Amino acid sequence: MDYRGIFEDAVDTLRAEKRYRVFADLERIAGRFPKAVYRDADNAREITIWCSNDYLGMGQHEKVVAAMQETAGAMGVGAGGTRNISGTNRPLVELERSLADLHRKEAALVFTSGFVSNEAGISTIARLMPDCVIFSDQLNHASMIQGVRQSGMEKKIFRHNDVAHLRELLSQVDRKRPKLIAFESVYSMDGDIAPIKEICDLAEEFGALTYIDEVHAVGMYGPRGGGIAERDGLMERIDIIEGTLAKGFGVMGGYIAANRSIVDAVRSYAPEFIFTTALPPALCAAARASIEHLKGNGQERLMHQRQARLTKAILADAGLPVMETETHIVPLIVGDARAVKAASDMLLDKHNIYIQPINYPTVPKGTERLRITPTPLHTDEMVFELRHALVSVWTALELPREKADAAITASKLTSGDLTLPSLGG
Amino acid sequence: MDYRGIFEDAVDTLRAEKRYRVFADLERIAGRFPKAVYRDADNAREITIWCSNDYLGMGQHEKVVAAMQETAGAMGVGAGGTRNISGTNRPLVELERSLADLHRKEAALVFTSGFVSNEAGISTIARLMPDCVIFSDQLNHASMIQGVRQSGMEKKIFRHNDVAHLRELLSQVDRKRPKLIAFESVYSMDGDIAPIKEICDLAEEFGALTYIDEVHAVGMYGPRGGGIAERDGLMERIDIIEGTLAKGFGVMGGYIAANRSIVDAVRSYAPEFIFTTALPPALCAAARASIEHLKGNGQERLMHQRQARLTKAILADAGLPVMETETHIVPLIVGDARAVKAASDMLLDKHNIYIQPINYPTVPKGTERLRITPTPLHTDEMVFELRHALVSVWTALELPREKADAAITASKLTSGDLTLPSLGG
Repeated sequence: MDYRGIFEDAVDTLRAEKRYRVFADLERIAGRFPKAVYRDADNAREITIWCSNDYLGMGQHEKVVAAMQETAGAMGVGAGGTRNISGTNRPLVELERSLADLHRKEAALVFTSGFVSNEAGISTIARLMPDCVIFSDQLNHASMIQGVRQSGMEKKIFRHNDVAHLRELLSQVDRKRPKLIAFESVYSMDGDIAPIKEICDLAEEFGALTYIDEVHAVGMYGPRGGGIAERDGLMERIDIIEGTLAKGFGVMGGYIAANRSIVDAVRSYAPEFIFTTALPPALCAAARASIEHLKGNGQERLMHQRQARLTKAILADAGLPVMETETHIVPLIVGDARAVKAASDMLLDKHNIYIQPINYPTVPKGTERLRITPTPLHTDEMVFELRHALVSVWTALELPREKADAAITASKLTSGDLTLPSLGG
Repeated sequence: MDYRGIFEDAVDTLRAEKRYRVFADLERIAGRFPKAVYRDADNAREITIWCSNDYLGMGQHEKVVAAMQETAGAMGVGAGGTRNISGTNRPLVELERSLADLHRKEAALVFTSGFVSNEAGISTIARLMPDCVIFSDQLNHASMIQGVRQSGMEKKIFRHNDVAHLRELLSQVDRKRPKLIAFESVYSMDGDIAPIKEICDLAEEFGALTYIDEVHAVGMYGPRGGGIAERDGLMERIDIIEGTLAKGFGVMGGYIAANRSIVDAVRSYAPEFIFTTALPPALCAAARASIEHLKGNGQERLMHQRQARLTKAILADAGLPVMETETHIVPLIVGDARAVKAASDMLLDKHNIYIQPINYPTVPKGTERLRITPTPLHTDEMVFELRHALVSVWTALELPREKADAAITASKLTSGDLTLPSLGG
């Protein structure tokens, strides 16, 4: 049996489709974010990162760094076991309290990543409700789709952000069956926002639980960084809020926040949680320092929105096809895997700017893009440098300048894409 | 719809079966492992942990702590994105090289946990092989079972460590179909070891790939800490070695090591990997420091084995029902959820010793146990204190003293247990 050949063929398929991924080897420089050292075969040079999910630069905030260093010195670098097997450490208990408080919920539960939070959260909650039906937005993240699938429960996919379609699907299901509506607040690839209030109204009307993924919003929206639901005064209408410690908060890990009985049930039944070593104390202390800082300080959020607006305006003014978004995410659609790779390579090679290509399966084919994420630490000067570099690349590669709108992603989805993440083509 | 009631009922089931888990709130003390501060409702006191999976105490090793602190200071606390979205950091690249070298493989790939490594590794490898059949040991860890299930491929469960049964199952399958044999080296609850050589012989005879989980062995066995396969000179006969950074190495995260084409395929296709933020540089640097230290120093391994042997001998000599094991794991079977909880509580309350109860679904019902893990940092004096405390608890609670052997766990499995992790019962 030629096993090596099987795996090489699988990878060659990606190469042929120009979506084979080469990871850039980066060395961040604390205190100088968004600058980093980029290494290729034989040299190293300084570049500017324009695609980080450390949206607020909290990964290098001095309070956060100090919390990690001090806690590592006091308690060591690991938790030493699963939550049940001696791994429940003091800073982790405090982190969960801080998260419950952030979302004004009774309890919170931390996982090793947002992916695992969604997989474990959705699948466990749904499995515990006999004969449950899950209503899932068409553009939900791969981790939510994996959670839905793993639950083994009936699912109904509603068209992206389409409350009329959601209503239609809800009304088709017996009122007595338990229901879970799973959606995101900010969709990270188009930067659009869900109609949270309308979804909550429908949930109330049809007696459904609501599960929201706020990973691209926590830390960044709301008076204390609780996310879009906090900003819009809707947190208490959401049953389960899922978030990440790895983006706005700059560290790593994921979580859910909900009432005590839901959190206790997931804690007690989710294998992904039960059988995983707890997050290290030093990491928990860093995450908590970041959350608490952002609860009490709006400065990062203000500057974040300012630099995002500035970037969008400057790039649009230069005739670049900026997708209009309501958020801090600035997508430039290229629409072709080969072209977006060439653009990314040229930005890095000629302009020392790093924006990785985004292609399938992260976005549907035909919507390949550069996804720019301005942070509070990108200076105005960097924004102008970015404009210059992008215009130069767009001209050199003759890339399309037609303006794309946020509907493009949903419109490109085929029924096959509803079963993402897939291993096929 | 009474959703709160549904989740409360689910948790009440666990309470009724005496397997509701209360996590001990612990504060490790760097430099004084295995000592920790234990907190309950209104006070804090110092205890000795006897159930840590930080098997060698590397979580507090000064080189490892320094690596985390220095790297956090230089590069910050987070990776800032998924591997593809600016998250591939220099220390992570170096960590993967260190792991590939540890196992003498062409490449390695790091995940956020051992659970995710198994889920993503097994499911992706199997899905990429058309019409694959997976042969899985009956006692494989929940994460491996989840990987098998998620692959959607045909599976055949062989009786625990039973090569005759494995041969029988292999011979029933068409030679032309791809095959994957998935098993562990050290089974963590009984501390027994797989017949690796015989399994490799069968794999060769029937043309199967071999996937071994060495999470309870890496760092601890073999001349450089490569695990049982290294100790027995069998690493090159294993196609995929899965390990953890959270136990012997004392930090957190999981990995696979294999040839370049397998690693590249998993890297390119596994959603759990693609859509997860990379491990922070500081954590990667700490893990690498630990791995490199253990590659070059056998002292921790020697002392680990010495203290494990001493503990087993001392406890057996005191008439306690120590399960005979070939490894560092020392199980004391109690066989009842209520009794094991009472024993654990009494050890903590009266003797300041922490050994959490292990119950279903981690082990089959009827094999509930205390699982003791001596480390190189447990002194001889601590071993004698442990004996005294256990004898006192065994007497007070009139616990069974019949000696259990390693067959007990497998013998208690029912066909239902082969579908663990389950939410039922």
